Amino acid sequence: LLRGDTLNTNASWIAKKLSERGMDIYKILVIPDDVDEISSSIRESDEEIIIITGGLGPTPDDMTRKGVADAFGDVLVMREDLLDEMREVHEVTKDAEVMAQLPSKAVPLKNPVGSAPGFVIGDGNRMVFVLPGVPEEMKAMFDDVLRHLEKFGKKKHYVAYIKTAKPEASIASELNEFVRRFPSVKLGSYPKGEQVYIRLSSRDKSELERAVEWLKKQIE
Amino acid sequence: LLRGDTLNTNASWIAKKLSERGMDIYKILVIPDDVDEISSSIRESDEEIIIITGGLGPTPDDMTRKGVADAFGDVLVMREDLLDEMREVHEVTKDAEVMAQLPSKAVPLKNPVGSAPGFVIGDGNRMVFVLPGVPEEMKAMFDDVLRHLEKFGKKKHYVAYIKTAKPEASIASELNEFVRRFPSVKLGSYPKGEQVYIRLSSRDKSELERAVEWLKKQIE
Repeated sequence: LLRGDTLNTNASWIAKKLSERGMDIYKILVIPDDVDEISSSIRESDEEIIIITGGLGPTPDDMTRKGVADAFGDVLVMREDLLDEMREVHEVTKDAEVMAQLPSKAVPLKNPVGSAPGFVIGDGNRMVFVLPGVPEEMKAMFDDVLRHLEKFGKKKHYVAYIKTAKPEASIASELNEFVRRFPSVKLGSYPKGEQVYIRLSSRDKSELERAVEWLKKQIE
Repeated sequence: LLRGDTLNTNASWIAKKLSERGMDIYKILVIPDDVDEISSSIRESDEEIIIITGGLGPTPDDMTRKGVADAFGDVLVMREDLLDEMREVHEVTKDAEVMAQLPSKAVPLKNPVGSAPGFVIGDGNRMVFVLPGVPEEMKAMFDDVLRHLEKFGKKKHYVAYIKTAKPEASIASELNEFVRRFPSVKLGSYPKGEQVYIRLSSRDKSELERAVEWLKKQIE
């Protein structure tokens, strides 16, 4: 990901799933395979919920388990129960056993598609979900994450789009006026080719409808 | 990007361009359109070079100019020279003039494709490049960035790939031994479908060749 060989489709997929459920994403971060980078990124984060993908395999560049344990001042312990489950599916080499080592305070998340289990770990401040980086495995485990997150997704967003062929610069004055008139409606403006997509969102459905009607009239 | 509607192709494209020139990317970050998030992300970063895309348009959600100025304790000033250049191409409405406001210490970067100029700003600690988010505009301006960065890209990386159909878990022991034997060779292991791609890189070409030969023999 950091060399640009691979598009970050995991981040987009997860962001979409959470957005659809009314959750706001505040940050997407890609960092190197480095224990200290992983642990400090978690510790320095202000977010309540963190979802990590990747670095759970059996090879020496797989450092997420250790990085997350460090972030919580925790240690890795061999989970014999997980090891047994892994052995039921595949032969597990000595070096691959590391995949069954989780932070002592972690709760495992089952991986129905591959061998590396995921986990969730939390303290009073934050909750960290850790999933494999292989997209099929990550996706297969995401329903588990959503179940844990249910209580965070209650606040519904209403969203509307307005599309216009006018250049952004020619409607900037209308959009500035819009922001003053409808402070509770969030506005995003996204030029794409010859079109501008204006995204309006609010938790207040009727305010959003008023806002859309006003802006459409101004632009047309 | 934070809602998962759009893949972050800009980040991958830039990462690839820099990697090809021997530069290492340490972090990719996606944050909301928020002045304080932008300025604090810059101030809290340890990196020498930061490349920002997006948020340079004329609409109220375009906050990058202000965020970057804040990060450097700088203020925005209207650049009449840029405004004149913009006017030569398009009519510039009162609200669109904001695109010609740059931090006072910034050096503008010309945008041959669209209207919003980019800029570069630096102090003793870091250098921040700011480019538009529209991919065609960003790409058209990137040669300018590379010219500024030339001196950072001198240290050549040598890279080799080994592909194997064996599962990662079954070669983990060889990879662990590899890391002990060749500490100067960086190893990454990327499962993709039924294959595992092992990426080896080093600044020492002959050490890399020895490493590749050794690892191929172990895996086969």
